[in-house]
Amino acid sequence: MSSYAPPVQRLITELGKLPGIGQRTAQRLAFHIMRADVEDATALADAIREVKEKIRLCEICFNLADEPRCRICQDERRDTSLVCVVEEPGDIQPIERTHEYRGRYHVLGGALSPIDGIDPEDLKLAELYARTTAADPKITEVVVATNPTTTGEATALHIAAVLRDRAPGLVVTRLASGLPVGSDLEYADEVTLGKALTGRRAL
Amino acid sequence: MSSYAPPVQRLITELGKLPGIGQRTAQRLAFHIMRADVEDATALADAIREVKEKIRLCEICFNLADEPRCRICQDERRDTSLVCVVEEPGDIQPIERTHEYRGRYHVLGGALSPIDGIDPEDLKLAELYARTTAADPKITEVVVATNPTTTGEATALHIAAVLRDRAPGLVVTRLASGLPVGSDLEYADEVTLGKALTGRRAL
Repeated sequence: MSSYAPPVQRLITELGKLPGIGQRTAQRLAFHIMRADVEDATALADAIREVKEKIRLCEICFNLADEPRCRICQDERRDTSLVCVVEEPGDIQPIERTHEYRGRYHVLGGALSPIDGIDPEDLKLAELYARTTAADPKITEVVVATNPTTTGEATALHIAAVLRDRAPGLVVTRLASGLPVGSDLEYADEVTLGKALTGRRAL
Repeated sequence: MSSYAPPVQRLITELGKLPGIGQRTAQRLAFHIMRADVEDATALADAIREVKEKIRLCEICFNLADEPRCRICQDERRDTSLVCVVEEPGDIQPIERTHEYRGRYHVLGGALSPIDGIDPEDLKLAELYARTTAADPKITEVVVATNPTTTGEATALHIAAVLRDRAPGLVVTRLASGLPVGSDLEYADEVTLGKALTGRRAL
């Protein structure tokens, strides 16, 4: 029998369902919430309810949105001829932070992984192909920014193959793989270093 | 400008206020919550609200409770002559798990730390002294189980000094310090090893 009162135990259980939050962390968070101001705890509870009530997927790019279209797809200064394909909504923010990209996005909702039962029809691939063959807005380049992992690479190759077939004039590019800036050659793994070599550029 | 919709940003901000949850973890948790079933997310939000509404401090020991008295103080099989003093409610569970202790508790709500402005009157010390000098239930031993840290030790010494003065017949004990079971002498720090030596027991 837990020595905690049932509401405490319930909170620990619910917190423990979050990814990366074990039993001890859940306890620590629960005790923090119990000590916190009522306002702060209520703000957290309300924020959780609010995202579930208000957040949906953008009808164009499947990014998270609280309106039919996300803020990026609503932004008229964006270059609508460029589409960057990412696995998850959380991948957009890091790209935005670079200030190097001014096009739109397309969120797949994952990567192809037959072993986990994730097939093309489980991702927003049909929607991507429909976007790239539509007349308005005319898309001229698709930047595939799936993760540099086995499943991300497989997804990128799949997309490239389908687009080559269906949208012959379209340029399909992939984010460069190579040494992270500020890293040390001595500690680079051989796959990354290999990618950096094959992807070498003229100075 | 964040590319997230305001409800998403609010949830990330609120999650980021939790201890040990940085910006990236908050994002990861937020994305998990947005992907989760409505039922799971609602259960978490409700659990947060519920603890803030229902949880109070036990009128005897200041443990967390959803009734005037906590489950331990309500339990009549407990030895009411024994009181174990801990810093936080979260310290009770580990002691309970040992099944070695069948007395009651007293939660101080922290440890003395003049540097952080935590003085005796900020803790439930007056209440501890009142309990130990009351006639019913008659308390015969106080086990001081504050943490083996500078502030925990200072608190233990403070309690021992006051109780020696006010409750002369009372036995005041302290949890043993020493080598953790299963640890290796070679890797023991010298303070712990020193405590293990001074606290050595006849075999």
